[in-house]
Amino acid sequence: MSIYDERINQLRALMKDKNIDAYIVCTQDFHSSEYVGDYFKEREYLSGFTGSAGTLVITYNEVALWTDGRYYLQAEEQLSVSDIKLMKMGQKNVDTIEEYLTKNFNDIIKKSNTVDSSYNNLKEPHNKLNKFTIGFDGRTVNNHFAEHLKSKIKLNISIYADEDLVEAVWKNRPLLSAKPVWELDFGYTGRTREEKLEALRAEMKKTDSDICVLTSLDDIAWLLNLRGTDVEYNPVFLSYMIIGMNDAVLYANESIFSDEIKEKLELVQITIKPYNDIYIDITKIDSNKNILADYNKINYRLIHLIPSKCKIQNIQNPIVRMKAVKNSIECDNIRKAHLKDGIAVTKFMYWLKKNIGKIEITEISAAKKLEELRANQEGYIGASFAPIMAYGRHGAIVHYCATQESNVKLEKKGFLLSDTGGHYLEGTTDITRTYVLGKLESEEKTAFTLVLRGNLNLASARFKYGVTGVHLDILARQPLWENGLDYNHGTGHGVGYILNVHEGPNSIGWQIKSDKINDIILEEGMVTSNEPGFYLTNEFGIRHENLILCKMLCETEYGKFMGFETLTLVPFDLEGIDKTLLSDREIDWLNEYHQYVYKMLSPYFEGDELKWLQMATKMI
Amino acid sequence: MSIYDERINQLRALMKDKNIDAYIVCTQDFHSSEYVGDYFKEREYLSGFTGSAGTLVITYNEVALWTDGRYYLQAEEQLSVSDIKLMKMGQKNVDTIEEYLTKNFNDIIKKSNTVDSSYNNLKEPHNKLNKFTIGFDGRTVNNHFAEHLKSKIKLNISIYADEDLVEAVWKNRPLLSAKPVWELDFGYTGRTREEKLEALRAEMKKTDSDICVLTSLDDIAWLLNLRGTDVEYNPVFLSYMIIGMNDAVLYANESIFSDEIKEKLELVQITIKPYNDIYIDITKIDSNKNILADYNKINYRLIHLIPSKCKIQNIQNPIVRMKAVKNSIECDNIRKAHLKDGIAVTKFMYWLKKNIGKIEITEISAAKKLEELRANQEGYIGASFAPIMAYGRHGAIVHYCATQESNVKLEKKGFLLSDTGGHYLEGTTDITRTYVLGKLESEEKTAFTLVLRGNLNLASARFKYGVTGVHLDILARQPLWENGLDYNHGTGHGVGYILNVHEGPNSIGWQIKSDKINDIILEEGMVTSNEPGFYLTNEFGIRHENLILCKMLCETEYGKFMGFETLTLVPFDLEGIDKTLLSDREIDWLNEYHQYVYKMLSPYFEGDELKWLQMATKMI
Repeated sequence: MSIYDERINQLRALMKDKNIDAYIVCTQDFHSSEYVGDYFKEREYLSGFTGSAGTLVITYNEVALWTDGRYYLQAEEQLSVSDIKLMKMGQKNVDTIEEYLTKNFNDIIKKSNTVDSSYNNLKEPHNKLNKFTIGFDGRTVNNHFAEHLKSKIKLNISIYADEDLVEAVWKNRPLLSAKPVWELDFGYTGRTREEKLEALRAEMKKTDSDICVLTSLDDIAWLLNLRGTDVEYNPVFLSYMIIGMNDAVLYANESIFSDEIKEKLELVQITIKPYNDIYIDITKIDSNKNILADYNKINYRLIHLIPSKCKIQNIQNPIVRMKAVKNSIECDNIRKAHLKDGIAVTKFMYWLKKNIGKIEITEISAAKKLEELRANQEGYIGASFAPIMAYGRHGAIVHYCATQESNVKLEKKGFLLSDTGGHYLEGTTDITRTYVLGKLESEEKTAFTLVLRGNLNLASARFKYGVTGVHLDILARQPLWENGLDYNHGTGHGVGYILNVHEGPNSIGWQIKSDKINDIILEEGMVTSNEPGFYLTNEFGIRHENLILCKMLCETEYGKFMGFETLTLVPFDLEGIDKTLLSDREIDWLNEYHQYVYKMLSPYFEGDELKWLQMATKMI
Repeated sequence: MSIYDERINQLRALMKDKNIDAYIVCTQDFHSSEYVGDYFKEREYLSGFTGSAGTLVITYNEVALWTDGRYYLQAEEQLSVSDIKLMKMGQKNVDTIEEYLTKNFNDIIKKSNTVDSSYNNLKEPHNKLNKFTIGFDGRTVNNHFAEHLKSKIKLNISIYADEDLVEAVWKNRPLLSAKPVWELDFGYTGRTREEKLEALRAEMKKTDSDICVLTSLDDIAWLLNLRGTDVEYNPVFLSYMIIGMNDAVLYANESIFSDEIKEKLELVQITIKPYNDIYIDITKIDSNKNILADYNKINYRLIHLIPSKCKIQNIQNPIVRMKAVKNSIECDNIRKAHLKDGIAVTKFMYWLKKNIGKIEITEISAAKKLEELRANQEGYIGASFAPIMAYGRHGAIVHYCATQESNVKLEKKGFLLSDTGGHYLEGTTDITRTYVLGKLESEEKTAFTLVLRGNLNLASARFKYGVTGVHLDILARQPLWENGLDYNHGTGHGVGYILNVHEGPNSIGWQIKSDKINDIILEEGMVTSNEPGFYLTNEFGIRHENLILCKMLCETEYGKFMGFETLTLVPFDLEGIDKTLLSDREIDWLNEYHQYVYKMLSPYFEGDELKWLQMATKMI
C-alpha cells in the first residue's frame, strides 16, 4: 500500500466519524488565487499528483482524480503508485464529478436494498435513509461549485463544509506563508489608500451597502497599496477584509506588517486581526446591515456564515473595475516597466540568435538566461508567471512548462515559443515571441504571418466607446479564420499592476458562454494582452503577444473613439514573415512598431547588439 | 374646437363612465405588425397625426402625443389645429409617458387634498382613494409596455385593458381588412405545411408544451404556406392560431379563404373560426395544459386571458428561428428574385444616369420609374416597404419618405440615396444604392468609399460557426470608426421570404442593450442585410446595402467555417469611389462582385444599355 493510499484511509476514518459519504479535495486556496502556497496543497499530499489543476474525490470504495488534457500523462505516471483512478476531463464517456457521485450513491442505495453477505460495513457505513453527505473544506470552493453539485445530483444530499478533514491527517503540514509585506508609495500607485477607501465607500453607498467583504488577495493589495510574497508569481499576502463605512478590519498574520505599515493602517481606521478570525467575526455582523459580497469571489464557507437576516448585495466587488483602470501615474510607470522588459527580452533575442547552433541551449537554460537578463534590470521583482519556453512541437502545447524530463535542446531550425513576464516596481509584463531558430517550412512561415496579421489588426483597431472584447476579437482571428484555422484560447486577458498577470474584468474573446457575455467596456487605462496564436499538434506552435493600453483617441460629433497603445517593446522575428501575405497597411503598422521599438531601445544597445537591433527592426 | 378635440371629449365621457383616469392610444395593430391597416389608425383618428410612430395620452385636463425625431416637424404642423401637446421623445427635459402620468396623478392627489372652489368636477372625477386607472386597448400593446407603466409609476395603479373605448367614438370606422388569401406551392416553399406543423410540434414537445399560441402574422403565413394583403408591404393576413398536438384553430375572417384552401387546411386538422373568437377560446383552455406563449410577441390582453392555472412556457416561439433559416428551394428562388430585382434596379440606374439633367426627375417620379421597372418583371408582387428616394440633404434623414411637400427635383450633382425593395413570387428584396448624379465634393467621395469598404469587408467575412451579428459588426464600421465617423443604426436586419422585409431574429449590430445580447448564431440559410451608411446632417447621406446569405464554406480540424454569398446584383456607382482609399483586397472584392453582376445581368441587357453595364461594372 502506497503512502497515498494510507493517507486516504486515515481520511476515510475521519469521514466515517462525521458520516460523510464522499469527501472532495480541491486545488484552490481560500482566496481563489491562480497559484497556491504549499500549505494549501492537500490534493497533492493525498494523491501525489502535482499538476496545477485537479480535484480528488474520496468515497469508501474508490478514489478518483479529475484533471484536464494538459496533465493526462503526468497524472497517469504520478497516480500509478496508488489505487487512485484517473478521470480524464473533457474526454467522451468520462463522468463528471456529479455524474460519478450520482452513480456511486445509487449503487449504495441498490446494495442497501439487497441482502449482501459480503457487504463490508467497516468500509462503508450502512445508509438506511438514502441520504448522503458530501464533505469538503468550504474555504477552498466557490458558491457555484457547491450549488452545481447540489443541483446536478438528484438525490437527498447535504453538504458538510465547515471543517478541513485533511488537517488532522497531514503530518508536518507546511505553515501558512507569512512573508513580510512591503508598501508601494504614491509615486508608484498614483492614489493613496485613503482615496481608494473613499472611492470604494462611495461605490458601496450607491448600492446601499454598509459593509463590504473582500477576500481576493489582489483586491486587498491594491486597496491598501501593499504587496507581499505569500503566493508564487502574485505579489500578494494572505488576508481578508471586512470594510465598514468608517473603519475596517484586515484579517492577516500581524507579524507580516512592519510597525510603520501598522501605524499607517491605523491612520485610516484599519485594525489588524488574526487571519482566521474572519470566520468568527462574520457571524457577528448586525443583522440589519446590508452586505456587499461578490459570490463569484468569496468562498463558500464565508458566504454561509453571514447571518441569514443580513441583506446581501451579491454584485461584482467595485474594486475589480477600479483597479483595472490604471491612472496616469500607473500608466507612466507601466511604460517604464515595459522599456526595461523590452531591453531584457530583446537582449535575450540577440543572445539566442547569435548562439543557436554554437553553444548548447535547452528550453530550461534559455528560460534561465532570460530570467538573468530581466534580473539585471533595476526594480525587477520576479517572474509574473511560470515561464513557457517551448521548442518545436512543445510550442503546440498551450500551457507547456519545461521540466527536467521534457526539456529539449534547441536546434538551428523551427520555432522557439517563449511566453514569459516579469514584475517590476513599475508594473507587470507579459510577452510572447516566437523566435525563428533556423530553416522554416513554408506552412510555418504562413502560419507565423497570419498570426502576426491578427496581432497587428487588433493593435491598430479604432473603435467607438462602449465596445467590448467580444466585438474586437474577430480582428485578431480573421486572418486565421479566412484560412480555416483557429486557436483554442481567448485573444487577451486583463493584466494587473504589480499584481496578477491574469486580472480581469477586461478580456478579448468571442465566445459567449451560456448567456453570460463579456459586457466589460474597454475603458481608457485598461491593460489587456493581445495574443493570437496557432498550434499544429506535434509540429509547432506560434503566438505573438503584446500588452496594449486602451486610450481615448478623439471625440467627434459621432462619439468618443478609442484605440490602443502597444506597451511591449520587442521586435517580432522578421525571419518568420512571408511579406506577400501582408497588406500595405499591415506592412506600415509593422514598420511603425519596429521603428518605435528601435527608437525606445537603441539608447540601451551598443556595438554588435545595436547593429543587430537595427537589422531586427528594419523596414520591410 | 377642432374635430380632434371633439372626438377626445367624446372619449373622455366614456372614460368617466368607466372611472378611467388616463387613456392611452398606441399605433400598433393586434399583432405588433410593422405597418398597420386603416382599421387600426385610432391615434390618427383622434389626433390628426399621421406619422408611423406616436402614442396619445388622454387625461381630463390635457392630451399629449409622444413621437420621435423623425416626426417633430410633421407632428407640430398636424397638431397645430387642436389642443394636443407635442412631447418630443428623446429631447432633454421631455417627460416620458410614465413621468408625465406620475406628475398628472400627483397633481390630482394634491388637488383632492385641498379645497379648491374652482375645481371642475365635471371634467375630472373626484379621486378620494388616490387610486388611478389607466386604460388602453390591451390588444394594441405588448406585455412589456404595461409592466413598464406599472413598475415606473409608483402610485396605486390599476390597468383597464379589456375594451377599445375608441370603437364607440369612431364614426364610419374602416372595416378590418379581409383580402383574399393565396397559396404558395411546394416549388416556392420547399416544405409542406404538414412538415412545418410537424416540426413545430416537435419543438413544442421539447419544451413540454401542449399548446402553442401564435399571433405574429408572418409566423402564421409561413407555417401555413399562405399569403395575404391585409397589411401594407407585408404579404400577410389578419389571423391568430391556437395549435394543439393533433389539431389547430385558425382565427380569421372565413371569407378570405377559397374552398380549395379551406379543404387543404381541413386535411391537416386546421379549423377556421372567427377572428375575434380567440379572445373567448383562450379563456377555455384546460388548466392542466402547458402553453407555449412568447410574451414578446403576444398582445397584453391575450396574455391576461390565459387561465391562470395553465403553465406558461414564455419562450421564443420556435417558428421565429425555423422561418429564418431558408431551405435550399427557398434559396434557389431567392437568387431568382434577386436576379429580377437586379435587372430592374440596374435598368433604373442606367435610366437615371442617362437622363439626369436632361429631363425633369424628382424624388417621387424616380421612385415611380423604379416601381414600373420592377413591375415589368414576371412574378413581381409589390414593394416590400415604403421606398426611400432621397436626394442631397434628404439622404441624411435615415427614414426619409418623399411627400408632395418635401419632393425635390434631382440636379446634376451630389447623391441620390435610394433604399427600396420588392416582393416577388420567388422572394423578397431590399437594396440601397447611392447614385452619383454629377460633381461630388471630395469629402462626399471619401465618405462614399469608406462606407463601401465596410460593406465589402462584411460581405467577405469568413468566420467560425457560432459567431453572431454582434461579432461581425465591427467589420462594417471600422473604416468609419478609424476616421472618427459612424452611423446611428444597425448594420443589418434579417429578411423574410415573401414576408416581412424586417424579420429577425438574425441581425448585425454591435450595441448590447441592457444586458440583452444578440446571441443569434448566424446559421446557413439566413438572409441578412449588409447596409453600413454615413449621414452628414443637412448635407448628404450614403448607404450601400446588399442582402447576404449565410453559407458554410468548409469544415476543418479547427471547426466549421462560415461566410456570405451576396444576393443583390446591382453595380455600386464607380463614380463615387476614391480608389486610393481602397486596399488591394478591397479592390479585388469589388472587381469580383462587379464581374459577377455583369455575368448575371448581361444576358438581359443589349445595345447602349449593355455597353453602359460594361462600363458600370468595369475593373478598377
